[in-house]
Amino acid sequence: MGKLYVIGIGPGGSEHMTLKARAAIEESNIIVGYIKYIDMIKDLIKDKTIYSNGMMGEEERCREALRLSKDNIVSVISTGDSGIYGMAGLILELADEMERKNIEVIPGVTASSAAASIVGAPLMHDNCNISLSDLMTPYELIKKRVEAAAFADFIISFYNPRSKGRPNYLREAIEIIKKYRNSDTPVAVVKNALRDGEEASLFTLETFDDSIVDMLSIVIVGNSQTYIKGGKMITPRGYFQ
Amino acid sequence: MGKLYVIGIGPGGSEHMTLKARAAIEESNIIVGYIKYIDMIKDLIKDKTIYSNGMMGEEERCREALRLSKDNIVSVISTGDSGIYGMAGLILELADEMERKNIEVIPGVTASSAAASIVGAPLMHDNCNISLSDLMTPYELIKKRVEAAAFADFIISFYNPRSKGRPNYLREAIEIIKKYRNSDTPVAVVKNALRDGEEASLFTLETFDDSIVDMLSIVIVGNSQTYIKGGKMITPRGYFQ
Ligand SMILES: C[S@@+](CC[C@H](N)C(=O)[O-])C[C@H]1O[C@@H](n2cnc3c(N)ncnc32)[C@H](O)[C@@H]1O
Ligand SMILES: C[S@@+](CC[C@H](N)C(=O)[O-])C[C@H]1O[C@@H](n2cnc3c(N)ncnc32)[C@H](O)[C@@H]1O
Repeated sequence: MGKLYVIGIGPGGSEHMTLKARAAIEESNIIVGYIKYIDMIKDLIKDKTIYSNGMMGEEERCREALRLSKDNIVSVISTGDSGIYGMAGLILELADEMERKNIEVIPGVTASSAAASIVGAPLMHDNCNISLSDLMTPYELIKKRVEAAAFADFIISFYNPRSKGRPNYLREAIEIIKKYRNSDTPVAVVKNALRDGEEASLFTLETFDDSIVDMLSIVIVGNSQTYIKGGKMITPRGYFQ
Repeated sequence: MGKLYVIGIGPGGSEHMTLKARAAIEESNIIVGYIKYIDMIKDLIKDKTIYSNGMMGEEERCREALRLSKDNIVSVISTGDSGIYGMAGLILELADEMERKNIEVIPGVTASSAAASIVGAPLMHDNCNISLSDLMTPYELIKKRVEAAAFADFIISFYNPRSKGRPNYLREAIEIIKKYRNSDTPVAVVKNALRDGEEASLFTLETFDDSIVDMLSIVIVGNSQTYIKGGKMITPRGYFQ
């Protein structure tokens, strides 16, 4: 009997992984994942079989993991939480009835939580995660979501915020938000949160500079109550203070 | 020199805590937190000083933690992520300049990620967290958020979904969502995710029964693409499948 763990390893640094994720990796004989993520856990997997390939082979990688899980203990790894823009969905979509029985999804600390912890406490009130990748989502729907979130005063965390193929989406999203929020609303950019190469910067909607943002970054825009104090970005718990 | 860790212990079971959270608790000589959360980590803190009090003394508890952190190593604990409806915000709000220097926020796996991992992969696309507590947020704003999130096809996770003091808010929220989504949209209720007493149930917007929901539960409503297959709730990654 095999087993398939779908693991969120957290933001990247090994100490922000859960004990359960670590134990599942240690128990596995095969590790499947994108090469950069495999590299983040290399100290844990020295004696294991690795199945990895380029970013484009996600579906193939999942099918292979499902196949191997019939008579192996396999871990498929995502960064952050495996269930938020991670591998859990595709694995469950592709699994047949037999394969599904062996699957266990192990959650992790997602990038927005990791980034928030570095800049302060920006996510203390109702908040949303929006991916700016239009690979599988129409850009019109993405913009509609940004506008709805801005209108209803959600704190917004942007995943996949800016790539060479769509350099302007983030700027356009910020322009939409400006219609609803004051120009002094805090904006945080965190690159490589809680892993090697960590960099964090605080802006306002007015001073925001998207040129420092890349695919290793997450961008958090505060709500109408968010403020900066002593270099920390803080959203109060309520509206009656 | 003291230290103040603001720790998210994850959903509750000790294995879903991060290694960093565990190490910080072990390093601390004083643990501050709500009594039920202290109880969840009792095996880790046998030899430590505990500062706890009822749910209502949050601000007092934070002030005490800040005071103690001047010459102790103190951990303030929240369940889930300390930065999502947890203690990180209040601690940073109350801290003075000196105290702020000693603060380190340690993130954890938030309840929506924990609950999602149990029922499948419902959070695979843009999603939001909404608290239905009106203690410090006007109910009109909460409803406005539910409506905006429903309109823009966000997956919605409801925290603090139902208490004796506001038994109807969840039902009213579901009614708002029904205006925008099909009646067969999946809805998950997870009580005590990844800790003792775990219970999970799947409904649709049509069959949803709020009577089983309490303050130990989280409710996840899928987006227009979410479906149930083999007992798992799955949101596909995209709109072009
Ligand atoms: C395909 S998504 C994966 C998200 C991941 N499953 C999670 O829950 O964090 C990739 C995006 O996550 C964000 N991300 C993941 N890890 C990060 C980190 N350590 N620091 C900053 N952003 C990160 C970036 O926005 C990146 O473009
Ligand atoms: C004050 S909020 C704290 C949230 C926490 N900081 C987090 O990030 O998960 C309390 C609410 O979180 C949710 N919650 C926390 N832990 C949970 C668990 N293990 N299972 C289900 N719901 C949970 C419930 O909705 C509860 O009413």
